[in-house]
Amino acid sequence: MAEVTDNLEKLDVKDKAAKKAKAPAKPRKEKVQHPAGGKGDKKKETKLGLKASKADDFGAWYSEAVIESEMISYYDVSGCYILRPNSFSIWEKITDFFDKGIKELGVQNAYFPLFVTEDALNTEKDHVEGFAAEVAWVTKSGQSELDRPIAIRPTSETVMYPYYAQWIRSHRDLPLRLNQWTNVVRWEFKHPTPFIRTREFLWQEGHTAFATLPEAEEEVLQILDLYAKVYTDLLAVPVCKGKKSAKEKFAGSLYSTSVEAFVSATGRGVQGATSHCLGQNFSKMFKIEFEADDGSKQFAWQNSWGLSTRTIGVMIMVHGDDKGIVMPPRVAPLQVIVIPIPAANLTDAQRAELSSTTADLVAQLKKAGVRVQCDDRDNYRPGWKYNHWEVKGVPIRLELGSKDMEKKSAMVARRDTGAKEAIMLTDVAARVPALLEEIQADMLARSSAQFEECKEVATTWEDFMAALERKHMVLAPWADEEEVEDDVRKRSATADAMGAKTLCIPLEQPELPPDTKCFASGKDAKNWALWGRSY
Amino acid sequence: MAEVTDNLEKLDVKDKAAKKAKAPAKPRKEKVQHPAGGKGDKKKETKLGLKASKADDFGAWYSEAVIESEMISYYDVSGCYILRPNSFSIWEKITDFFDKGIKELGVQNAYFPLFVTEDALNTEKDHVEGFAAEVAWVTKSGQSELDRPIAIRPTSETVMYPYYAQWIRSHRDLPLRLNQWTNVVRWEFKHPTPFIRTREFLWQEGHTAFATLPEAEEEVLQILDLYAKVYTDLLAVPVCKGKKSAKEKFAGSLYSTSVEAFVSATGRGVQGATSHCLGQNFSKMFKIEFEADDGSKQFAWQNSWGLSTRTIGVMIMVHGDDKGIVMPPRVAPLQVIVIPIPAANLTDAQRAELSSTTADLVAQLKKAGVRVQCDDRDNYRPGWKYNHWEVKGVPIRLELGSKDMEKKSAMVARRDTGAKEAIMLTDVAARVPALLEEIQADMLARSSAQFEECKEVATTWEDFMAALERKHMVLAPWADEEEVEDDVRKRSATADAMGAKTLCIPLEQPELPPDTKCFASGKDAKNWALWGRSY
Repeated sequence: MAEVTDNLEKLDVKDKAAKKAKAPAKPRKEKVQHPAGGKGDKKKETKLGLKASKADDFGAWYSEAVIESEMISYYDVSGCYILRPNSFSIWEKITDFFDKGIKELGVQNAYFPLFVTEDALNTEKDHVEGFAAEVAWVTKSGQSELDRPIAIRPTSETVMYPYYAQWIRSHRDLPLRLNQWTNVVRWEFKHPTPFIRTREFLWQEGHTAFATLPEAEEEVLQILDLYAKVYTDLLAVPVCKGKKSAKEKFAGSLYSTSVEAFVSATGRGVQGATSHCLGQNFSKMFKIEFEADDGSKQFAWQNSWGLSTRTIGVMIMVHGDDKGIVMPPRVAPLQVIVIPIPAANLTDAQRAELSSTTADLVAQLKKAGVRVQCDDRDNYRPGWKYNHWEVKGVPIRLELGSKDMEKKSAMVARRDTGAKEAIMLTDVAARVPALLEEIQADMLARSSAQFEECKEVATTWEDFMAALERKHMVLAPWADEEEVEDDVRKRSATADAMGAKTLCIPLEQPELPPDTKCFASGKDAKNWALWGRSY
Repeated sequence: MAEVTDNLEKLDVKDKAAKKAKAPAKPRKEKVQHPAGGKGDKKKETKLGLKASKADDFGAWYSEAVIESEMISYYDVSGCYILRPNSFSIWEKITDFFDKGIKELGVQNAYFPLFVTEDALNTEKDHVEGFAAEVAWVTKSGQSELDRPIAIRPTSETVMYPYYAQWIRSHRDLPLRLNQWTNVVRWEFKHPTPFIRTREFLWQEGHTAFATLPEAEEEVLQILDLYAKVYTDLLAVPVCKGKKSAKEKFAGSLYSTSVEAFVSATGRGVQGATSHCLGQNFSKMFKIEFEADDGSKQFAWQNSWGLSTRTIGVMIMVHGDDKGIVMPPRVAPLQVIVIPIPAANLTDAQRAELSSTTADLVAQLKKAGVRVQCDDRDNYRPGWKYNHWEVKGVPIRLELGSKDMEKKSAMVARRDTGAKEAIMLTDVAARVPALLEEIQADMLARSSAQFEECKEVATTWEDFMAALERKHMVLAPWADEEEVEDDVRKRSATADAMGAKTLCIPLEQPELPPDTKCFASGKDAKNWALWGRSY
């Protein structure tokens, strides 16, 4: 895995953040003028947002964003974080979607133990080497030493496959397709980053076995498609589907595929999820054999595939801005925040009318399937509330003031663009769900355009380095050799930035004219790879 | 906790079971006569079932049942088990139901880390004493010793409450109602039993904080009701709702409530789930204070509540029989197994018709929302299939033979009673869902009648002991004093059986006439408690 040397990872965000978490900011009672509903009305708005700027200090911005939005709390075991409801509910939406998808494919859920014995863990040498330094060991229970230390799963190949060997006897027992939603532990010593690199994280891991390679390979791509959809359809984040290079693939796999996202603010790629074809590597080690139709003994063909809470971090990094999180509507815990704004001089009757109209709007939206809440707290001013819900990333703010009431309309503000529109009260229940879908589509369109802008083609070393300097990914023809990748990584490292690696070899390959040479080695190019600095 | 001395727990089921798991039984090709559909037809049926008998050797029966039904695989870390799809899917149905229930109450899901520091764990002394001997400690990562050992959560009070203290400042931050679905680890040295007592298990734990005791107490009972519904409405298992005695309550709680089930085959009660009112014990230790309306500082009132995969074990123990598992339809992974039975002399056309009729029935049932599957494997005989699906507990078997085809009907057999009925093919899609609901209701009615039969009233020591001898629970008036409970437990232990303890003090109390004396101490009775030997 890549050495990590840039700012974000150097930053020890924990202490700063922890201090902040212990002394939550008092409500800021800044004076705010309510934009009173006229079309094109340009009134001053309070811009509180976050203290750190995404462009200037990404690391500080990110930790401020995840804490202030109440997605994360830092925890007193380093590298572990609390997923608060505001982020966990996103994970629930991702799990719902993906779980349905794999069940339609015929995958069943199961649960295997958290613990793995030393012997099982060491069965597959290549595999375990990738994790050995990061394995957490339980050696004591109460005051007693255990006879033998027991590992906490860093992933479950070695937990599951001894049992696959027992369960699979005949071709009729295949395919065996199991998935589990679990926590895993990798005691990394790199600087942790919430969601992106944590010592414990939540994920799903699918582990399947087939009688033939083509069946296994079909699934690898079906799962990869589902992963891509989690990013594009739920999180509004574009990804590139591809195959990992020999250097970057999962140890012990035949080949690995992944979806790769890109964080333009840092110029770094991020692996979004992986779908591995394990071939017969594990089945040979764990003796997962079956009797074929013709009576011969054969080793099963296996896959494993995983998607983690990292998804949420990628979403934040791609969409967030200096005001805080920007939630794509489909995964937003709360899609609409309704804020009634009573003028100071309202009569009791007017106040009651505002209140009942607000309640009615909320009820209508709920009925229309919208996740909506009303913030009618009287101890906070509207400006404070705007800021509060913007930091949290709620896609739509619906303001209802006295002038709006006169016009029988409400003012709607989009979190993603800041654009506002007045909607007649009678239209709210129809317009808001449509607007949520528009926001979702616009967010994906914008992030996709940005993704394309950040992808440059280079055929020479100079162009390659220049693109990296511009914080871009680079699509370049190369020789597809591990030593070339090693060489590129070394040569592309600078005083300020880590070296570049292959993010993937995209499944959609541009044409490769005959005699094209590798941008780095001058050897014959075998394919186009997408390169970049990365998480 | 109770000392455990009876057969089930003495039995070291692991080795036997593991051997069996490694050499799965070959298909048994017993000759079987198909009961060919006539009303009242009494033909011989193969009765394979399990080798062990529930009545004669409960421990052996239970382990055979959970393995042969493919609910559990034994694992090579003692006390840990693999939840295979056949049991995990029951857990999914329980989580769906309960998760919806608590969200309607306003509870949100979150995720807190698996690890807890020694300092946090030791904050609440009474609490930690209950777990200290069972805590698993991580002391190493890779080859490096950790600076300080880190515990794996046995439960999450000490994980969460330091952060509740940060998040809760004002009465406006209350109630705070969080839940998480997680694994926890209690490294018990008692003999483990799948689902019932395991070193790692899955559960939900709710942790809530309120401004006032009445609000907290209302929730304690709302949650208890949901727990009771999981048992009665999903698992068809009756429970008694009650308060735990001082001796049996959760350490550190103000009081604990629970739902108690009963396994008549062993004459033992089993705690089904617990809902604790923690009072201010933890909030004082962890300084969870809020500023009240009047500006005063007050400690929050807290609850915690949990339901685990033990539910599944209770279901198996209550309903299972010598043929295997009996699944209540609402949680059955598979509700109907369709078995076509082609006669040997069918023409190709007849065979094709049988096949298409079967496919059509499956499609109709799926459309009606039934979880259905067809077993048309040609390498197993019908009798083997009957046995196979009975062991797994599928509520309805639908047989379709050549004579059935002539009559345009199918034969339906209930797993719970063995009763059969012929259904016209045109009625299947309507009748089967109704029959599933009948089975569900009948199972609850039978288990409830049995529960009541096993509950005796005793007012004297002699009657109390006689009831225990009959493997019953005993409802007895008592002094509600810890030392009386200690005394009862000692005196009621026999050479063959552990002593009895209070299962609970039922919420529904029979009338307690004035001057009623405690059955055990002769002191004035304070209430009726339900006593029994227990898991």
